[in-house]
Amino acid sequence: MSRQYKIAVIRVATLDNEERLSQHGRLIEKYFPDIITKSYCIQDQYNGVHDDASHEIATEKIVNLVKDIQDEYEGIVISCAGDPAVEILKREIDIPVVGAGHSVASFSLNFGEKIGVLGIREEAPEVIERILGHKLVGSVKPQKVNNTNDLLTDEGRQEVIESAHELQKTGADAIVLACTGMSTIGIAKFLNENLQIPVIDPVYSEALVISSLCKYKSLF
Amino acid sequence: MSRQYKIAVIRVATLDNEERLSQHGRLIEKYFPDIITKSYCIQDQYNGVHDDASHEIATEKIVNLVKDIQDEYEGIVISCAGDPAVEILKREIDIPVVGAGHSVASFSLNFGEKIGVLGIREEAPEVIERILGHKLVGSVKPQKVNNTNDLLTDEGRQEVIESAHELQKTGADAIVLACTGMSTIGIAKFLNENLQIPVIDPVYSEALVISSLCKYKSLF
Repeated sequence: MSRQYKIAVIRVATLDNEERLSQHGRLIEKYFPDIITKSYCIQDQYNGVHDDASHEIATEKIVNLVKDIQDEYEGIVISCAGDPAVEILKREIDIPVVGAGHSVASFSLNFGEKIGVLGIREEAPEVIERILGHKLVGSVKPQKVNNTNDLLTDEGRQEVIESAHELQKTGADAIVLACTGMSTIGIAKFLNENLQIPVIDPVYSEALVISSLCKYKSLF
Repeated sequence: MSRQYKIAVIRVATLDNEERLSQHGRLIEKYFPDIITKSYCIQDQYNGVHDDASHEIATEKIVNLVKDIQDEYEGIVISCAGDPAVEILKREIDIPVVGAGHSVASFSLNFGEKIGVLGIREEAPEVIERILGHKLVGSVKPQKVNNTNDLLTDEGRQEVIESAHELQKTGADAIVLACTGMSTIGIAKFLNENLQIPVIDPVYSEALVISSLCKYKSLF
């Protein structure tokens, strides 16, 4: 194997359990074996990023956390589809900084022309809206899912499946999963097997982008 | 190594020499060892795609060529930054179809906010313009370079270098190379070493996208 890149994965919900903390990192390493991850999370924010207020509070925590640890890494993944702190950090630090939002939206443009967004907020995250532009045809939130933890229940999972079918019915030709909690519950594979349209996973997308940026730097 | 994907690479200029014909394919295999390529080219079009008329003529030839060979492949790369035939083929065949234009423009959005385009036409290719939107800050064509073959001379190469410096001076914070002939002459590495802003290679970008689409299909 060619050389491996050392990446910090920032979880935007407080996770006291090491197994859960490193779950996105393990997925990233599975998808792209040229990446080695270490996972971190922000403090005192057990429900993660789920509205404007929690996005703002998380942003400051992420900026501080990343600035403390950046010297040990070749790249940073902010594992959240809202891309909190991503634009600030891109301006302020010298290694690649990747968010799930930009990544999943850009990758989805290879799959369709009428993209539906399935997340945990009524509106699609701003970064996703901006990249999809007029290709964004609708955004849905499962009724009882209001934060990433609500995805972990059987009811939450069932509601995600129903929302995906709803987006398909309204004419979307691809679906962006706009919360990395959807990757935690591994729903993309199930949806891809059960819907007629492609469903794009956010943790795969962020892994793809950080891997390609590190590789590009070493090749060019 | 995990499984490899069989990809057809379509060159949009007539190339009678096997070594030159397969050059982009060899680069793609080098960058992404999970890809195996076979290269094809269109007939009777030695100067490739360099204006609206040649784009249109090439489009029909590419559509016919790809329809003839698609059954043998898991994906198609149209190795041209103008993305001729890409949208048509995406609607008409069932395997992934990737163009250099969409690929290099999307990938460049990870590198900057003010993107300059360096190609062989005065205007940036339409697909690149569309993806960059208001982030496109300028487009330049080396004065004496009017088609892909003009890049192969020392003078052509020198002019590309000057144009890149010009884009940097006008305030671009990243440069898209908008002709795959720039990959043929391997200029991206030289420019990345000699400019202060990142320069994005089109053949790397198309390789990245076809590899990630094939991989995504097998994972999800």
